[in-house]
Amino acid sequence: MTKEEIQGAQEDQAQSKKAAKKLQKEAEKAAKKAEKQAKLAAESQVADGEDIAKDRYGTPAMIQSQEKIDRVLVHVKDLTEEKVGQVVWLRSRVHTNRAKGKQCFLVLRQQQFNVQGLVAVGDHVSKQMVKFAANINKESIVDVQGIVQKVDQKIESCSQQDVELHIERIYVISTAEPRLPLQLDDAVRPETGEEEGRATVNQDTRLDNRVIDLRTTTSQAIFRLQSGVCQLFRETLINKGFTEIQTPKIISAASEGGANVFTVSYFKTSAYLAQSPQLYKQMCICADFDKVFCIGPVFRAEDSNTHRHLTEFVGLDIEMAFNYHYHEVVTQITDTLVKIFKGLRDRYQTEIQTVGKQFPSEPFKFLEPTLILEYPEGVAMLKEAGVEMGDEEDLSTPNEKLLGRLVKEKYDTDFYVLDKYPLAVRPFYTMPDPHTAKYSNSYDMFMRGEEILSGAQRIHDPQLLTDRALHLGIDVEKIKSYIDSFRFGAPPHAGGGIGLERVTMLYLGLHNVRQTSMFPRDPKRLTP
Amino acid sequence: MTKEEIQGAQEDQAQSKKAAKKLQKEAEKAAKKAEKQAKLAAESQVADGEDIAKDRYGTPAMIQSQEKIDRVLVHVKDLTEEKVGQVVWLRSRVHTNRAKGKQCFLVLRQQQFNVQGLVAVGDHVSKQMVKFAANINKESIVDVQGIVQKVDQKIESCSQQDVELHIERIYVISTAEPRLPLQLDDAVRPETGEEEGRATVNQDTRLDNRVIDLRTTTSQAIFRLQSGVCQLFRETLINKGFTEIQTPKIISAASEGGANVFTVSYFKTSAYLAQSPQLYKQMCICADFDKVFCIGPVFRAEDSNTHRHLTEFVGLDIEMAFNYHYHEVVTQITDTLVKIFKGLRDRYQTEIQTVGKQFPSEPFKFLEPTLILEYPEGVAMLKEAGVEMGDEEDLSTPNEKLLGRLVKEKYDTDFYVLDKYPLAVRPFYTMPDPHTAKYSNSYDMFMRGEEILSGAQRIHDPQLLTDRALHLGIDVEKIKSYIDSFRFGAPPHAGGGIGLERVTMLYLGLHNVRQTSMFPRDPKRLTP
Repeated sequence: MTKEEIQGAQEDQAQSKKAAKKLQKEAEKAAKKAEKQAKLAAESQVADGEDIAKDRYGTPAMIQSQEKIDRVLVHVKDLTEEKVGQVVWLRSRVHTNRAKGKQCFLVLRQQQFNVQGLVAVGDHVSKQMVKFAANINKESIVDVQGIVQKVDQKIESCSQQDVELHIERIYVISTAEPRLPLQLDDAVRPETGEEEGRATVNQDTRLDNRVIDLRTTTSQAIFRLQSGVCQLFRETLINKGFTEIQTPKIISAASEGGANVFTVSYFKTSAYLAQSPQLYKQMCICADFDKVFCIGPVFRAEDSNTHRHLTEFVGLDIEMAFNYHYHEVVTQITDTLVKIFKGLRDRYQTEIQTVGKQFPSEPFKFLEPTLILEYPEGVAMLKEAGVEMGDEEDLSTPNEKLLGRLVKEKYDTDFYVLDKYPLAVRPFYTMPDPHTAKYSNSYDMFMRGEEILSGAQRIHDPQLLTDRALHLGIDVEKIKSYIDSFRFGAPPHAGGGIGLERVTMLYLGLHNVRQTSMFPRDPKRLTP
Repeated sequence: MTKEEIQGAQEDQAQSKKAAKKLQKEAEKAAKKAEKQAKLAAESQVADGEDIAKDRYGTPAMIQSQEKIDRVLVHVKDLTEEKVGQVVWLRSRVHTNRAKGKQCFLVLRQQQFNVQGLVAVGDHVSKQMVKFAANINKESIVDVQGIVQKVDQKIESCSQQDVELHIERIYVISTAEPRLPLQLDDAVRPETGEEEGRATVNQDTRLDNRVIDLRTTTSQAIFRLQSGVCQLFRETLINKGFTEIQTPKIISAASEGGANVFTVSYFKTSAYLAQSPQLYKQMCICADFDKVFCIGPVFRAEDSNTHRHLTEFVGLDIEMAFNYHYHEVVTQITDTLVKIFKGLRDRYQTEIQTVGKQFPSEPFKFLEPTLILEYPEGVAMLKEAGVEMGDEEDLSTPNEKLLGRLVKEKYDTDFYVLDKYPLAVRPFYTMPDPHTAKYSNSYDMFMRGEEILSGAQRIHDPQLLTDRALHLGIDVEKIKSYIDSFRFGAPPHAGGGIGLERVTMLYLGLHNVRQTSMFPRDPKRLTP
């Protein structure tokens, strides 16, 4: 051990001791509190008389897999009129609970479903049991046994509107702390409309307490739909004969010259985090895998604090050899995206509706076949709308947005391809257009006016690749292994990378990519 | 710019200039060579007479998407007797080519399929064309047009044994360099058996030239099967109602105390690469996702140079809330693995056979239901076989291997679960066994005697979690956010992580995990 290490270890130990002391104090406090509660309970028992239900409620020992209990737990979503009269067990969260005289009403929640529960003094239920139910901290998890009963009036506030549960047993499986950092009802409240002005939850509070924020119906719907995006992407490509590949994220050299790349300490040397799987996808094409896709994290050390940038996001990547024209690949990609849009529309309507309650938006529109505009056409539309820009200038974000609106007005679609970008604004490995030197065989795809995919025919000839790199002042020695990949026969190929979080965000008409990343990473956020 | 940066930039520039010079020299050399070849060709034309086939072969301009050609290219695997007499176009690699008098035989390869091609002097084919075909560098990509002809004797060396292609046009689409760093035939040669002693390719040469090594029938089969492992894993879990999640790889604190973790520079601070998605999977369970899975990279900064360790590998991860006993989860995991084994057996028999030709192994055996042994039973079997070890001692790698052999002998299975590991050898978040304090609710799963999954019931109670961390001397302040995840109601849950490369390796009976990682990363390898 070096001096610093010893010192560090000692500091750690000191801190650890301090933490232990603090925890001990907390434990003592908790013990005192428990004692006080027990005393109160005992007093209350005296006041309420003998407890006829004392085995029917409580907080049993933590589930440690003590025994295999042969008990069927029903799902809240299955509590319908068909079950009326049945005695069922279920496990759920206590969404709300309030006492009202000799009874306690609870809303029992399971993911996006909830049902009303009632604990009312009677043959099986004591006053003490009602009190117990009323005092359970919200968000605690309970096992309840009860009889399913039909209700006279639909319960508008619950997903299960026709029945309620008359509870005969209630046990707390896991207790939530009494004070929640955010209220679930506030977290799903729309910011405009009828409820305008009532409490909502700001984004940082949500993200700081993501474990609770993810429990809302909106979050549940967003991430179930996102799981669907991945599934539809793969399903479509596997049916088209694509092979799934896994590409390394730790790389020895930054593929695009070293800007915006995270550095990793790698044993006695340094490495980088891959900004895209592109080199590896291309190597797989050179290795005869013909059509490949991968889903994985992509890292960008860009200090961009916008609604659509993350430092780590999920890339849905495609690369494919083609015969004679890169449009063979463009068609496969647009077809895949259209299959995703259709699949979401057909399989995730509940989720779309749920998100729409909090964040209303127009349904996502697309055409078949997909609209493909050439770059000059796009520039012409922008110029006509009063934008001043050069023919070989890249699109700014506001201009992308504007073009999206113009396209929507003219063609009634939220999805289109912009093809033939100026060569000057694309990376060195982009294949130049064979007919007009200032353009290239490259394309972006847009949803609601925002870019979700960037792609191109790649240069598969090592000499042209070298020439282009030199032309752009790139140190060719640093990208030697990339160029060498094409020296042993390489088919013409093209591909692109899709940002998963952006697709989910834009399909649902949301406005921040942090809403569609479970645990977002940006220059200012690394936790939780 | 600082002085160092300026100096660095100058050095870069100098290097860049040097590289440019080198490239210019190479280009000049290539030009001279081309000139010489043209001269030779002209001379040869004089010798061979006028070329009647001069439009029927050659090296056309690089495919730059000049035009959309309406030409159907057939697949080599579809060249069967049914196609005899048809004129077809196809694109393939030149696997081998050799001239023999007035004809040239080629083996044309597409992935794992190949067919014999023949260029013979005749009405459409000139001597020059035969020469051209014979001089194409191996591994170049060609477009050929030809007539499918039945052959008298089966062609044993090709996958298409009943037909050959009589070539009438041949164009080189992409030229491979004349010298290959490895020969594909050497790279698929078994190391034992009949061909023992003939050339094979060592692992570093393979990995250094992965683009070529991945073209072998063996590699193609391995990675197509691996794509199947992922597909079967997801298919099974989606059918079971699991949700796919995406977890961040850049994290702010090392979850297990900071050992074996890669450090990342993150803007003005430091971060780490996730050693597992476990914390995030658990947070999703606490956020009511109930059953989740994810597939993604996992990073281990371990200086282990063994046949089964990688610094970056792909984790197939599962986490699931359960009702009363963690065996509910164990059953789901073993059922998933068994579905994978069956799916591979039923859908990937060709690939299994292909790999077996180079690396023979016994077919993978498994039982239904899966064999679950308790740790003490395993220790007893080892002791009976002469191993000296304590009851609470962890299994060494040789002992794991030995136990695998003993289990195979006794139960005839290559797959089993070892349950109830000693608490002392598991991480702090492992749930202790409720009946015997020295054991825990944790398990490993093994294929052919090697660990492929490690898992456990996790402690879902924040107090017990804190106690266990303190007991093991972990600085609880550093894992505060992990512990806090359980403060707002957490269901009992369990899970595990499977190593994708190990599953593929062990299912196929291979002996090095680098064979089943496309671009492996270990302490000594960061490229390609």
